[in-house]
Amino acid sequence: MERKRILVVGLGLIGASLSMALQGFEDYEVVGAVRSRSTYDKAVAKRAADRVTFDHAAELPGADVVILCQDPAGIIGFLRDNRERFKPGCLVCDVCGVKTAVMRAAECLPDSVDFIGCHPMAGKEVSGIDNAEGTLFRNTHFIVTPGPRATPEHLDLLHRMADWCQFGDVIETTPERHDEMIAYTSQMMHVIAVSVCDNEELFSCMGFEGGSFRDCTRVAALDPAMWTQLFTLNAPALSKMVSELEARIHQYRTAIESNDRETLRTMLAHASDRKKQINLERARGDDVHPKF
Amino acid sequence: MERKRILVVGLGLIGASLSMALQGFEDYEVVGAVRSRSTYDKAVAKRAADRVTFDHAAELPGADVVILCQDPAGIIGFLRDNRERFKPGCLVCDVCGVKTAVMRAAECLPDSVDFIGCHPMAGKEVSGIDNAEGTLFRNTHFIVTPGPRATPEHLDLLHRMADWCQFGDVIETTPERHDEMIAYTSQMMHVIAVSVCDNEELFSCMGFEGGSFRDCTRVAALDPAMWTQLFTLNAPALSKMVSELEARIHQYRTAIESNDRETLRTMLAHASDRKKQINLERARGDDVHPKF
Repeated sequence: MERKRILVVGLGLIGASLSMALQGFEDYEVVGAVRSRSTYDKAVAKRAADRVTFDHAAELPGADVVILCQDPAGIIGFLRDNRERFKPGCLVCDVCGVKTAVMRAAECLPDSVDFIGCHPMAGKEVSGIDNAEGTLFRNTHFIVTPGPRATPEHLDLLHRMADWCQFGDVIETTPERHDEMIAYTSQMMHVIAVSVCDNEELFSCMGFEGGSFRDCTRVAALDPAMWTQLFTLNAPALSKMVSELEARIHQYRTAIESNDRETLRTMLAHASDRKKQINLERARGDDVHPKF
Repeated sequence: MERKRILVVGLGLIGASLSMALQGFEDYEVVGAVRSRSTYDKAVAKRAADRVTFDHAAELPGADVVILCQDPAGIIGFLRDNRERFKPGCLVCDVCGVKTAVMRAAECLPDSVDFIGCHPMAGKEVSGIDNAEGTLFRNTHFIVTPGPRATPEHLDLLHRMADWCQFGDVIETTPERHDEMIAYTSQMMHVIAVSVCDNEELFSCMGFEGGSFRDCTRVAALDPAMWTQLFTLNAPALSKMVSELEARIHQYRTAIESNDRETLRTMLAHASDRKKQINLERARGDDVHPKF
């Protein structure tokens, strides 16, 4: 009897890490589909998948699970170009950082195909298969945004795959809520990091930077093409969050400039208390991951 | 012959860590001066100093080195109140995060006292002697801002003390330059962290946060009273930096809202290249710490 097949399309940092993490999962063969010779050679050398191929089209009709690991435009184009090739009854998912736009693109799929948007909340400040590792997902969040056709069997399968990859938990939510949250927790952090690095003092500040500077700017070494897609595909939610941030930073500056110590102290105490509270809730870990 | 004496005034996180790190340094006795019974008991239990006392006034005339580890207002008040008690020829330094205001306050000292502003670029998001450890300074920067009366002997002594505490390097600069740099690399990071935590989504975002969010907001659990002092004592430099940050964040938001992908990609590539460049320079480590 033939083994079931997981096809991972795109072996960049996330795709190759996922492909490595998934090896040995139940009775599935893990196949990695690549486009470049260089990635092919590295994937084979690194044993990033049970099998590596250039021909995703030939693999699709036999794939029980397809995980799209390109950038958002790549995923959207792949869905459009391959919509007739998926195996009826298969599970298709993706791993990119915006969900509304991808879920909308997945509406082009036949009814027999179950698309579930996924977002592993893991990453590194470096990209590509060279930096991939099978342990990348340990104790990170795995967010899933099931569509209206999502079956309990496929959701259960995703939970088992997430367990196998050692994700810390699986969060189910809607694509819209995901995009609002991610605008806040991830995309805005990247806007902040690049804005800080644009300051003319960046190169003269060495010797004066501590942990807070290194932490805040870590993610600035991003992939410009991919983050341009992520930001613009989620423009309304991101713009709202950034606008609120600008207003709040401006309030702090006003209090500092006017030497209004009492207001400043009250503002800082408020924020500090909130942060301490969230640290406590996270440490307690009970009921911290409600279903949305 | 009596041992020489280092008096550490204030055994909070930095003071107690420094006092612990300095024990065994050359032929010095390390004495910790505290105000509260609770800190006294903890310091004794933790052996945070060779000797702990409530009576700084009695220790000052015999102290060869005095390290002021209170908050900025505490340091400034201590200099004013104890100016006549310091031993002629002694070295007085501090550890706080603003230097111009402290150096100005130190002008009240007699000519026989050598004040050198210091700033160990180390910390934690928690404070107090409970969290102190002698290894806190390993591989961090030790910034010194010598005044006009600083002697080569005292500077050399500070270098040897920094070596003993395992600081990564010693950076000499002016108080003004220190305050400009710290506004950028440290204070602005704290303004960002608290501004992010003020967002109403903070408590609903759990499950959606990755490394970038945890890193950026880590320092938000700050001490409101101390940071009110640090921000307002350095208002002009901090205000300038924050204002530039606001402008740059606004430019990103404008590009995102107008769906101007080409501009956005160019901006992101510019910032990302700068960050990669600085990572390289830091990794290379040659000539990265020029004297200012």
